[in-house]
Amino acid sequence: MRVGIDVGGTTVKVGFIEDYKIIHTLVVETKKETLFDDVFKAIKKFVMENNIEVEGLGVGLPGHVVGTVIDKLPNVGIENLDIAPIAKSYFPNAILKCTNDANAAALGELLNDTDKQASGYMITLGTGVGGGLVIDGKVRDGVHANCGEIGHMFIDYVHNYKCSCGLVGCLETVASATGIVRLANQYYDDFKTCLNKETMKAKDVFDAARVGDPLGLFVLEMVADTLGRAISIIELAVDVDTFYIGGGVSNAGALLIDKITEYYKRYAHYAVKNITIKRAALGNDAGMLGAAYLF
Amino acid sequence: MRVGIDVGGTTVKVGFIEDYKIIHTLVVETKKETLFDDVFKAIKKFVMENNIEVEGLGVGLPGHVVGTVIDKLPNVGIENLDIAPIAKSYFPNAILKCTNDANAAALGELLNDTDKQASGYMITLGTGVGGGLVIDGKVRDGVHANCGEIGHMFIDYVHNYKCSCGLVGCLETVASATGIVRLANQYYDDFKTCLNKETMKAKDVFDAARVGDPLGLFVLEMVADTLGRAISIIELAVDVDTFYIGGGVSNAGALLIDKITEYYKRYAHYAVKNITIKRAALGNDAGMLGAAYLF
Repeated sequence: MRVGIDVGGTTVKVGFIEDYKIIHTLVVETKKETLFDDVFKAIKKFVMENNIEVEGLGVGLPGHVVGTVIDKLPNVGIENLDIAPIAKSYFPNAILKCTNDANAAALGELLNDTDKQASGYMITLGTGVGGGLVIDGKVRDGVHANCGEIGHMFIDYVHNYKCSCGLVGCLETVASATGIVRLANQYYDDFKTCLNKETMKAKDVFDAARVGDPLGLFVLEMVADTLGRAISIIELAVDVDTFYIGGGVSNAGALLIDKITEYYKRYAHYAVKNITIKRAALGNDAGMLGAAYLF
Repeated sequence: MRVGIDVGGTTVKVGFIEDYKIIHTLVVETKKETLFDDVFKAIKKFVMENNIEVEGLGVGLPGHVVGTVIDKLPNVGIENLDIAPIAKSYFPNAILKCTNDANAAALGELLNDTDKQASGYMITLGTGVGGGLVIDGKVRDGVHANCGEIGHMFIDYVHNYKCSCGLVGCLETVASATGIVRLANQYYDDFKTCLNKETMKAKDVFDAARVGDPLGLFVLEMVADTLGRAISIIELAVDVDTFYIGGGVSNAGALLIDKITEYYKRYAHYAVKNITIKRAALGNDAGMLGAAYLF
């Protein structure tokens, strides 16, 4: 059986997967010191009890990973760790493949949505902005294991917000949850609004937009414009047929997706106007499913 | 033997290729009405005379092609033509694969430069700006056969030049040969210059920059800035290790390539600062070589 592992900052989710369906899930607490031992031990226990043979293990990780070696997982606190020897000590014969969590989620969304050899891009709008590229059914990690890090593309020429990466104008400075609040703050005094400057979160800004709040609407347009423009550029570079929008911000649903699509069509080259931009459908399960099909 | 065909507006170049080397070349005049018959006839004659077996034919075309069907070749005047039946009537058993000429050139440059499974992007700076993506040694045509059409990415936020595609701010409005002259015209009165406003070509602008002409230098900086920024965005989307700069404008050589690299490093995400940006090495042969390895 295939096992897909999605490592998060507070929990690790493990999916046992057959024929593209998650048939059982385990949840393991994320403990920095013993994380992979905890996870493989839990998997071993479950497969022994249920007489399951593990064909392979796929792991989606919230950070930079090259092959099976973690470079850095900022929110977990793990650096420079090769997962392969740990996995081997529990499952000597199982395949092990690792990737970035956005890449795993991208593959999960595609496998769930379309034929298994399709190409698509996933954009996750959370605290930051991440992304993952799947080409002909295969995750592209890239030469530097950095493919899909589109949160740092220079796209905002208006505000000159500084990004955590050291650059300015990065997509995530305006299109992440943090960026949305930043924009609402920037224009707070220019509009009548029901939003509370001290406490508003990205969800509040889009909820306000939904009921016609002028500031909320203004920020929504600006975020959707930026994302539509970014997608029009990425599409020329890779030419896929579907973009999946995931992450917490995507809970704004059609309000956001429809606006992004509207702006995309405004900026898109005529040959690629008819792509699909849709909300990611699997939520937290995408990472497990995609990870299980890395091999 | 593999045969690579590079269709241009005035001539069609045919290369007979063995082990990544062009061992013989034919040149056929581009005649709209009889183009493919002329080409396949010439190939047939040569292979009969030399007792060569044609394993397959690859074709690079200056326009939009889907599978073996030409959508449109603007500079040749051919539309809606399936090449497959014509090829089959001359070579019933040979494989036939077609792609855009920039894609073929991209593959040619990579095959000439590096290991055969590498990934890279070619950017051609000519009358327009084109591009081609090779992933793991394979040309990516894309879902709409539009992959690499980066000449139409929205990147120039300053001039609002209208592009032939109907959009504004496209990369090719400033970074093509036409765009370079357009910029030199725009800023002509702001600088002392040796350039002749009526007759200057892109080559003249960069030749002037080479000898310290203030207008030439200003335009060079602006073009290199735009290209460096464009590459920094494309790199996040696809993560390859080499960008090849080809087309007539690339004859400016190190003057241009070094400046693009300088700006790239300024805009690039820290994880991908160390890519290589180099001048395409094969010139007119890249298309033939790449076309021959489409299959």
